[in-house]
Amino acid sequence: MSPTIAILGGTGPAGTGLALRWARAGESIIIGSRSAQRARDAAAKIADKLGSAAIVTGDSNANACAASDLLALTVPFEGQAALLKELKPSLKPGSILIDATVPLASGVGGRASRTLGVWQGSAAQQAAELVPKGVTVVAAFQNCSADVMNGDGPVECDVIVCSEDPAATQMVCDLAAKIPGVRAIDGGKLENARIVEQITALLIGLNIRHKGHGGIRITGLPPTSYRSSK
Amino acid sequence: MSPTIAILGGTGPAGTGLALRWARAGESIIIGSRSAQRARDAAAKIADKLGSAAIVTGDSNANACAASDLLALTVPFEGQAALLKELKPSLKPGSILIDATVPLASGVGGRASRTLGVWQGSAAQQAAELVPKGVTVVAAFQNCSADVMNGDGPVECDVIVCSEDPAATQMVCDLAAKIPGVRAIDGGKLENARIVEQITALLIGLNIRHKGHGGIRITGLPPTSYRSSK
Repeated sequence: MSPTIAILGGTGPAGTGLALRWARAGESIIIGSRSAQRARDAAAKIADKLGSAAIVTGDSNANACAASDLLALTVPFEGQAALLKELKPSLKPGSILIDATVPLASGVGGRASRTLGVWQGSAAQQAAELVPKGVTVVAAFQNCSADVMNGDGPVECDVIVCSEDPAATQMVCDLAAKIPGVRAIDGGKLENARIVEQITALLIGLNIRHKGHGGIRITGLPPTSYRSSK
Repeated sequence: MSPTIAILGGTGPAGTGLALRWARAGESIIIGSRSAQRARDAAAKIADKLGSAAIVTGDSNANACAASDLLALTVPFEGQAALLKELKPSLKPGSILIDATVPLASGVGGRASRTLGVWQGSAAQQAAELVPKGVTVVAAFQNCSADVMNGDGPVECDVIVCSEDPAATQMVCDLAAKIPGVRAIDGGKLENARIVEQITALLIGLNIRHKGHGGIRITGLPPTSYRSSK
């Protein structure tokens, strides 16, 4: 088991999906939210679903952040920078922050099938600029359908993991591979999140057009490139 | 069988891959090149491989273009605009131009795992601006590994087809589905090629890192969304 994972801004569908999947895999989870009560409610719902063995609690974002050095950020893009600035005092050097943010144009009233340009190149790189020194941002999980993550079936999606720290990338690959169906792939440097984030907008466009819950698979890499639960 | 397909700038690996796959499927192909002799040589190589039933010839780009109203453009990004301007007099209204161009940074001495910003949003949209009125640009095939396309095995890659004309998109989906392993997906408007083009750079980065020949699959769409040969 990994250390407790704090899922910040974790009461939305992206956050509860990760919480559900990791709690089911036996990980200890704190959901964080602006409202501690809302976080506790979301945690209770997951605990109800999974039974007494699940370790899922809820708290304010700041408390959740202070309680862990393995964090996942699952807010919409328009809330990302503000939350990171607010949490700066609670982010400990040595922490790993998994960032799943996608700069969808829907954040400013546009279409979710389009993206915004981010000055730093990607939402993940914006996060890296905003966290205190010593906190490693790892981009992952942007392409996993929240609907599928909140369900019970396998997640037919590869998770491309990008960061500047190969050890952090490996740790997040291991965590991703605990989700049935997911295959984790080392995607190299954090800047590559630029493309991975864009793919989410493409998938949303395909979902609208074809009425599906799209994900991606990368084909053609050697078997050792993929980390999965089987 | 479709009308003859002219593959412009078709002596590179992207062009010969398409020519080989379509000729093998029984399509009639003209490879175009700046040098008609080089085009004939490339055509002869494919004909040698496929035997006498294959219909593959070579000619200058202008002659190939004039001989067909179903065109595929397979030049590196740095040659795309110049070739389209040069061919403008030969491009007939009503033609379909399949564009597989990706604005890789390697075109200006950078890395093939990074892209250039294109003013129009994508190489495909640049093509659409440069062709005469009445020519429909359809973006497709950007993500298929040239190495795999030039081989004999199935192409484990989905082809996301984007254009402003649903009938042209369907026609190109049908053509793509003739390649064993390929599944064609209607990707909506031409602007969505922005993201599809980026994916190529991501795949090239993964190929370098993992020593593979990456492709993509889109999961989670209804079966009717995919067009394939089986």
